[in-house]
This record gives sequence, C-alpha cells and structure tokens, in this order.
Amino acid sequence: MKKNRLLLTLITALLLLGVCTSPVQSAEKVYRLKLAETWPTNFPIFGDATKNLAAMVDKMSKGRLKITIDSKNKHKAPLGVFDMVRAGQYDMGHSASYYWKGKVPNTLYFSAMPFGMITVEQYGWFYQGGGMELMEKVYAPLGLLSFPGGNTGNQMGGWFKKEINSLEDLKGLKMRIPGFAGEILAKVGAKPTNIPAGELYTALERNTIDALEWVGPSLDLRMGFHKIAPYYYTGWHEPGTELQFLINKRKWDSLPPDLQEILRVSMRTAAYDMYIQAYDASAENWAKMKSDYPDIKVKTFPKEVLAALRKANDELLAEKAAEDPLANEIIQSQAAYLKKVRAWTDISDKAYLESVESLSADD
Amino acid sequence: MKKNRLLLTLITALLLLGVCTSPVQSAEKVYRLKLAETWPTNFPIFGDATKNLAAMVDKMSKGRLKITIDSKNKHKAPLGVFDMVRAGQYDMGHSASYYWKGKVPNTLYFSAMPFGMITVEQYGWFYQGGGMELMEKVYAPLGLLSFPGGNTGNQMGGWFKKEINSLEDLKGLKMRIPGFAGEILAKVGAKPTNIPAGELYTALERNTIDALEWVGPSLDLRMGFHKIAPYYYTGWHEPGTELQFLINKRKWDSLPPDLQEILRVSMRTAAYDMYIQAYDASAENWAKMKSDYPDIKVKTFPKEVLAALRKANDELLAEKAAEDPLANEIIQSQAAYLKKVRAWTDISDKAYLESVESLSADD
Repeated sequence: MKKNRLLLTLITALLLLGVCTSPVQSAEKVYRLKLAETWPTNFPIFGDATKNLAAMVDKMSKGRLKITIDSKNKHKAPLGVFDMVRAGQYDMGHSASYYWKGKVPNTLYFSAMPFGMITVEQYGWFYQGGGMELMEKVYAPLGLLSFPGGNTGNQMGGWFKKEINSLEDLKGLKMRIPGFAGEILAKVGAKPTNIPAGELYTALERNTIDALEWVGPSLDLRMGFHKIAPYYYTGWHEPGTELQFLINKRKWDSLPPDLQEILRVSMRTAAYDMYIQAYDASAENWAKMKSDYPDIKVKTFPKEVLAALRKANDELLAEKAAEDPLANEIIQSQAAYLKKVRAWTDISDKAYLESVESLSADD
Repeated sequence: MKKNRLLLTLITALLLLGVCTSPVQSAEKVYRLKLAETWPTNFPIFGDATKNLAAMVDKMSKGRLKITIDSKNKHKAPLGVFDMVRAGQYDMGHSASYYWKGKVPNTLYFSAMPFGMITVEQYGWFYQGGGMELMEKVYAPLGLLSFPGGNTGNQMGGWFKKEINSLEDLKGLKMRIPGFAGEILAKVGAKPTNIPAGELYTALERNTIDALEWVGPSLDLRMGFHKIAPYYYTGWHEPGTELQFLINKRKWDSLPPDLQEILRVSMRTAAYDMYIQAYDASAENWAKMKSDYPDIKVKTFPKEVLAALRKANDELLAEKAAEDPLANEIIQSQAAYLKKVRAWTDISDKAYLESVESLSADD
C-alpha cells in the first residue's frame, strides 16, 4: 500500500505540474492565419511574395504557424482587403497602402510618392529614418499593423502613342493613371481615367485612351502594350512602390513572441526578396521587349513637363500638409530624409552609373 | 492490487511512449554556434549585422539556437576566419569572400568587382541570376557554406591630397588600396600599398601615402581623412561590396530543418538590413562631413583614367578566365547578367535620378 500511495502521489504530481501534457500541447498548437491578397491567383511577383512568406513561416515554425492565402478570385474584393482585415474577416492582407487613401487619407504616403525616394532610399526612411513609426501612427488607431510588403522598383512613366514634346501635348491627353499621380496630371490639363486591367489593351489599341501607365517591364510585358504604343517614358510618379502586409492587431497580439518574430522577419525578407525578384524580372523582360520590338523608343519627359508636374505635386502636398498635422509630419519627414539621402545617392550609385556609361559610349 | 497494477501499467506505458520526456527534451535542446567575425568589438554596421542575426535567431527559435560572437579582439585572427571555420574551430564566420583569394582564387568574385554590379544588381545575380549556385560550386568542395552577409553600398574611390587630371598623375602615386583593385592600379603605374587601419591617418597626414580608399562616409567619418585630404573621388572599384556569412558544413548538417531555415532567413534579413543601415549611415555621415568641412571637393576621375583602369581590369579578368574553367564560368555569368540588368537600371533609377536632378538645378 505504501508503494501504491507513492505511485499515486507521483502520477498526481506529474499531472499537476503538467510536465507530461503542456510541452506536448505547446509544441503542437497550430496557429492559423488567413491572408487576403489584392491580386488574382498566381499573379507573378506580387503573388510570389505571399507564397514565399507562407513557406518561410511554415518551415521556421515547424508547422506551428500556417498562413492560407486567398486571392481576389476567392474573396472577390481586391480593394476590400483593408476593411476585411480591420473587421477580422481576414487576419492578414497583402496589398498597397495608397489604395486606402479614400478611407484614411494618411495611408497615401507609404507606397511611393511622385518625385520621391527610390527603393533603397525609401527602405532607409522606413527602417532608419522614422518611416515605420509614422506608419504605426496612422495604422495603430485603426487596430492594424502595417509592414513593407515588397517593392516593384522604379515604375516607368507609361506607354504613349504620341511623343510628348511640351506641356501643350499633355492638355486633354486621355491617360489611364489612377490615384495621386492622376490628380497631378489633371492639374496640368490631362484627362486621367481609370479602366479595368482587362480592358486596357483594347482601350489603347482603339485610341479610347492615348496613354497609360502600368508598372514596368516586370509586369508590362504580359500586357502587350509595347506592341501598340511606340513610346516608353521613364518614371516620375512612383520611384519605388512598396506593397503592404496588413495584420489585424488582435490576431497579432494572440501569437506567442517567437511566432510574432517569425512572422515579422518573414514579412521583412519576403518584401526585400520581392524587390530583387521584380528588379530581375524587369531586366529580363526589358531585354525581351527590346529584342522582339527593337523600335520601342525610351523617352524622358522634357524638363518643362517635369517641372510642371512637380509644381502640381508640391501644391497638392502643401494642401494636404495644411489640412492635417499628421500629414504634415509625414510629408516633412519624407522631404527631410529625401534631401539628405539623395545627396549620397548622387555621389555614389548615380555618379558610378554615369562614369561607366561614359566609357560604354565608345565601345 | 488491481488498481496498483493498473497504475504501474499506466506509468510504464507513459514512459515507454516517451510522452513525458521526449517533447520536453526536443523543446529544450539548445544548439550553440560560435561565430568569429573579422571586425573589432562593437564595430559599427558590420558588427551590428552579426548582433541582428543572433537576436533574430534566438527569438525565433525560442532560445533553441544560440549564436555567440567573437570579435577579432578575442580570436586575434581577423583574416583567419576562413581557416578557423573550415577547421571547425568556429562554426560560423562573418567576413568578406575576397579576403580568401590568396588561398582559393575563385572566392574573389563574391564581394564586389571593379566596374561591376551595384548592390541591387548584384543581389539580383546572387538570388535570381545563378550567383548563389556558383558560390556553392566554389565553397562546397571546401566543406563550407557561404551566404551574402550585408552590403556596404557603393564604395567611394578614396581620399586624395592632389587632384587627378590625367593618367600621368597616377604614375608613382602611393595609394593604400588592397586586393584586386590594387593590382589594377599597379598595372597603370601607381604604387599600391597596404597599411594597417590604425596607421592610415598619420600616413596620409605625413605624405607617406598620397591617397587611400576606405569604404564611404558610413565608415570614413570616424577615420577623419576628410580633415587632411580635400578630394573625395567617386567610386569605380567596389560598386556594392557584399560581406559574407561562412558556415561549417558539418555543423549546418547537424541542425534540424526548422533551425536551418531560421538561420538561413536570419542571415538573409541581416544582410539586407545591413545594406539599408549602411546606406542611411552614409547619407547621415556625408551630411555631417559636408557641414563641418564645406570645402571637400567631390570629383570623378577623368574618362581617360577610368578607361585605362577598366582596360587593366578587363586584361586581368581575361587572364583569370584563361587559367581556370570555373573562374571563366563565374566571370562570364557576371558579365552577361550585368549587361542585361544595367540596361534596366539605366532607364529606371538612373534616368529618374537624372530627371529630378535637372529640375533641382533651378532651385
């Protein structure tokens, strides 16, 4: 009986201490996150970023954190990602911050700004220059966390059927260019329109529009615009567009710290990786376009046109800064960082690229 | 007695199944990696990369993977990292691949090449253009794994006491410039020397040397060269220098798959993060230098000089390609990728930076 009591005590103690059960439970508890992305199923590059994220998270957590991805084909609400994550219908989103400017105006500043920072400069601002903290100021009151979600690189100014030689040539020009850049173009006399992606090629071909901007060679090639518009203008309006990972704050808070870190680091890597993938795809697709259509003409807008666009941009930003103190804080922060960082870009990468190009001219 | 036997059976079954013990053990088994870095204790930026790595790994693994970092102050062998990791004396290293070209010539190609790719282009080559696979071809036979370890960004051409107006001005010029770039300078008549970091300032001040290159504003500021040499030349020899994480292959193989992935993703993120940190620090320090010493003159070498340097570079590379098939394969891969990717850089970031600069000229 003594032995018996000893055994009973032992078992009870083990059960009470939870030595047997809790490690098994904690090692096996699986957290599941549902992510809604703005893109269609298997969309190149953007869609690879979410797949890369889910794979890293799964492997690093040994299956304890699982992300399932619903594309717009499933949830049918490409521009509803913000609302769905806010409401908790989805735990995460992959989209772009500037899509929400109609709902929360200060979300505009975390994708790309006309005449603003190129990709590496903008990552500097996000991670070293106070950008993440300002993004949190905008998103935290909404019950959301927002993180960089992958960069497209410098976006091209678009495909034009006719050359733009003066500001006059922009007057009345029908161009597909949405968002803030569209507002700028309207200010200088163009007629910005928005047309669904699936109808763009036909609209350009039939002269319903005179020009359009999409992304750059990485995603323009498959659209085929280079077959029907001879002028490819260099960029001014999105010098390095960052996508966005959105997370519902309550869901984030429910994760243990190691899984939060696994998620944070995976988002960060997926974002950087997407930038490198997009850069490579642009290089590859631009080589293909040039080889298949050697007559494509790369043009830069005349200085007069660029100066007018920048003036319109500066006026619109001044209006926004005057309306809202947080908008003002973000705009000032970006302007100050841009001034500092561009001075370095100009004597480093830019000076180097110009030196080397001057040599190639003799080849 | 029946009850007694039941309890005994229960306990035995639990012990046999290992339900109690194995999850506890596997949840608690701690893997420890010793990392030797080439840099002194608390070296800025480079040293932050290893700290960032160790912190991410620790947090994501919930303490199951621990990295301890020994700086050169501890191990006393800054350029012995390669040998120490190969021998298993350390499990990991943080250094730069081109330091090992005297031991294994083909390690030269994975840091930066004169007239080669800028940082984003080189990440494109590593991750999308076959660079990682070629690095593995070089390192796998040595029992080592090598991963990108953080990028300094475009390095400046160096500090010069006199202006360089012609190739003649390089003849006999005593310059601290080590490695492959030093070989190139020797070919055009300069006298490259190597001098320990601690003696560089005095050597430049007392005209023991006429010029030197270090990194760029991120790490040049603390050295103080801007106080004694008025000319700061833009870069040509290291357009985006990537550091290196080295791992002993046997040690890597001993880690479970989830910890391998945690280590891989942490290295990848630490590398990208260091690039952004270095870029930001360059911007910050360049602003400070210019403000404290407004007479610093930023110069680009004349075309004649750059053309001679590139000719010497191409000749040296042709020799290396002729000597070794793997060297040839790497050199060809880099050249082909550079050609493709630079065409994109030229119409994207470069065209944009030039457009915007043309506007600022009127400000």
